[in-house]
Amino acid sequence: MASEQPFTGSKISLAHGGGGQLTDELISQCVLPRLGNSILSDLLDSAILPLLAAGEKPTLTIDSYVVQPLFFPGGDIGRLCVSGTVNDLAVCGARPLGIALSLILTEGLPKSTLEKVLDSTAATAKEAGVRIVTGDTKVVGHGQGDGIYITTAGIGATACYKLHPDLIEPGDAIIISGNIADHGMAVMLARQLPQVQSAIASDVAPLNQMIASLLQATAGVKFLRDPTRGGLAGVCADLASRTGRHITLEENLIPVDPRTRHVAEMLGADPLDVANEGKVLAVVRPGAVQAALAALQADPHGVNARVIGQVDATGEGVCELHSTLGGRRILLKAYGEQLPRIC
Amino acid sequence: MASEQPFTGSKISLAHGGGGQLTDELISQCVLPRLGNSILSDLLDSAILPLLAAGEKPTLTIDSYVVQPLFFPGGDIGRLCVSGTVNDLAVCGARPLGIALSLILTEGLPKSTLEKVLDSTAATAKEAGVRIVTGDTKVVGHGQGDGIYITTAGIGATACYKLHPDLIEPGDAIIISGNIADHGMAVMLARQLPQVQSAIASDVAPLNQMIASLLQATAGVKFLRDPTRGGLAGVCADLASRTGRHITLEENLIPVDPRTRHVAEMLGADPLDVANEGKVLAVVRPGAVQAALAALQADPHGVNARVIGQVDATGEGVCELHSTLGGRRILLKAYGEQLPRIC
Repeated sequence: MASEQPFTGSKISLAHGGGGQLTDELISQCVLPRLGNSILSDLLDSAILPLLAAGEKPTLTIDSYVVQPLFFPGGDIGRLCVSGTVNDLAVCGARPLGIALSLILTEGLPKSTLEKVLDSTAATAKEAGVRIVTGDTKVVGHGQGDGIYITTAGIGATACYKLHPDLIEPGDAIIISGNIADHGMAVMLARQLPQVQSAIASDVAPLNQMIASLLQATAGVKFLRDPTRGGLAGVCADLASRTGRHITLEENLIPVDPRTRHVAEMLGADPLDVANEGKVLAVVRPGAVQAALAALQADPHGVNARVIGQVDATGEGVCELHSTLGGRRILLKAYGEQLPRIC
Repeated sequence: MASEQPFTGSKISLAHGGGGQLTDELISQCVLPRLGNSILSDLLDSAILPLLAAGEKPTLTIDSYVVQPLFFPGGDIGRLCVSGTVNDLAVCGARPLGIALSLILTEGLPKSTLEKVLDSTAATAKEAGVRIVTGDTKVVGHGQGDGIYITTAGIGATACYKLHPDLIEPGDAIIISGNIADHGMAVMLARQLPQVQSAIASDVAPLNQMIASLLQATAGVKFLRDPTRGGLAGVCADLASRTGRHITLEENLIPVDPRTRHVAEMLGADPLDVANEGKVLAVVRPGAVQAALAALQADPHGVNARVIGQVDATGEGVCELHSTLGGRRILLKAYGEQLPRIC
């Protein structure tokens, strides 16, 4: 009686990462049907992309994703890796040209889990209008991984549009594109209290189209950043420190979904410190604020965009929060982290 | 009495991956002093690189490195990740422009181990003439990693030089740039029999300068690949299958260090299946063989380059080995792998 061939069964084995016939089988059966395109399917050692337009500079970003759980309300590690990479390119003013995707799988992972993640990766790439152009797969043993780690690198093309903290001046407005803290709270809740049913969901989304509209609407945008790990407080504290400027945020202007605020209180987290994966912070010159808000609010991911603070004339390099209750406090970047593996 | 602050001690903690002050400390104290340059040290979400030359196409590659042990005779994971990425660009005809480096560290890793790996990464990047331009760091818990996993993506620029298996024709020569199997055997020996003293060492090295010389010396190179996982047999079996050609290799022409052959026999491995990290296989039209060999042999990494076979007029898509003893056998790509985590 033929028993099921262990290597070609329903779980990932170490041999799937060996570069032999089983690796080929994994690529041809699981990966290419979902992510394949004319460049990826050529399976060369590198992806050669079309010529850039005149004046465009090649742009590169990389991030590893180790989020746990792999699937959470509003998204999963596949949607996260594509969105994060596309957003890191977009906030530097780059249009995404292609994504390189590398998997570190743990022996014993159900193939169906991998396929679900790759389906989501493909759908998110389609949503963002970008292709997976090259990749790699490695497998590690039990106790040396945690299901799926994904590292994505993005290549983009940056036109002459310059975005840099050095351009920031007193009077510039701080805009956030919508409610903060949804991603971190959704993941923390799913991990810490999986039995709790909640309506909050991660905001994870590719923002390249919204950011392209914003940059097309006005030349008054000076700096963009997606407030992921470290949250809004981390980005603003960094920005104040780096520019040497005083930044003031008005707590009552910062949009937080009441349900997310409730979960944050329950878990002992400050929404200002919590990771977002579908928001952008923009520093905009005063005359461009209306155009910037209009461009953001016209996009489904930016409907709740608003001004939350400004850059002041004084210059001691700190970010100050005017609290809803009338107090003032200096916003510091979190020391360590509230909970690991949020992205 | 102040006790040592646990987070800023000599080991990596989960909080070093949180995106807060401790992540900043790790970047500023461990990473930037070793890898810093004008682009990386700007710490933006993406690295914007200089304009490409006219006609150059942006080129992207990615690989994850999970080799165990982290340090082995002839190299370490830092030298490996830079070399592997540079070589994947070079075999596609691209000059490397920059490397993106993402770390997945395991809680408890000694900082000194990370520093040693980053020193080697920096030295290898310098040797290859390429910079680390952007990066990321994540930390996972005990039992969810294995010290250090590194994923590197490389961005390169490809001029009009075309290298592709579709160009291969009967009569083309198969060249290998030197002794095979040293990398895999050195790593396997270090892992399986760490008590054995041996003179064999990994060949891991960046080959971009040698490959650039080769492509400059002759326009007769049709295809290049670095025979890593899967070894020489894997590359040749793939090439035969993909082109539909018959490829013949002469075993007595394939260079293997006798000590490496001895270790392979001891560990039950076939050198043809074993990974290399500092070799290139070239398919070259007959009239260009002498120029190609001269260019390779002029480089320290190619002194032992030689012709090991050819593409035949028949066309059944297999690779045949003429053995030293006069036999013939079909070379198959290994099914799984002989030993995991070789790169």
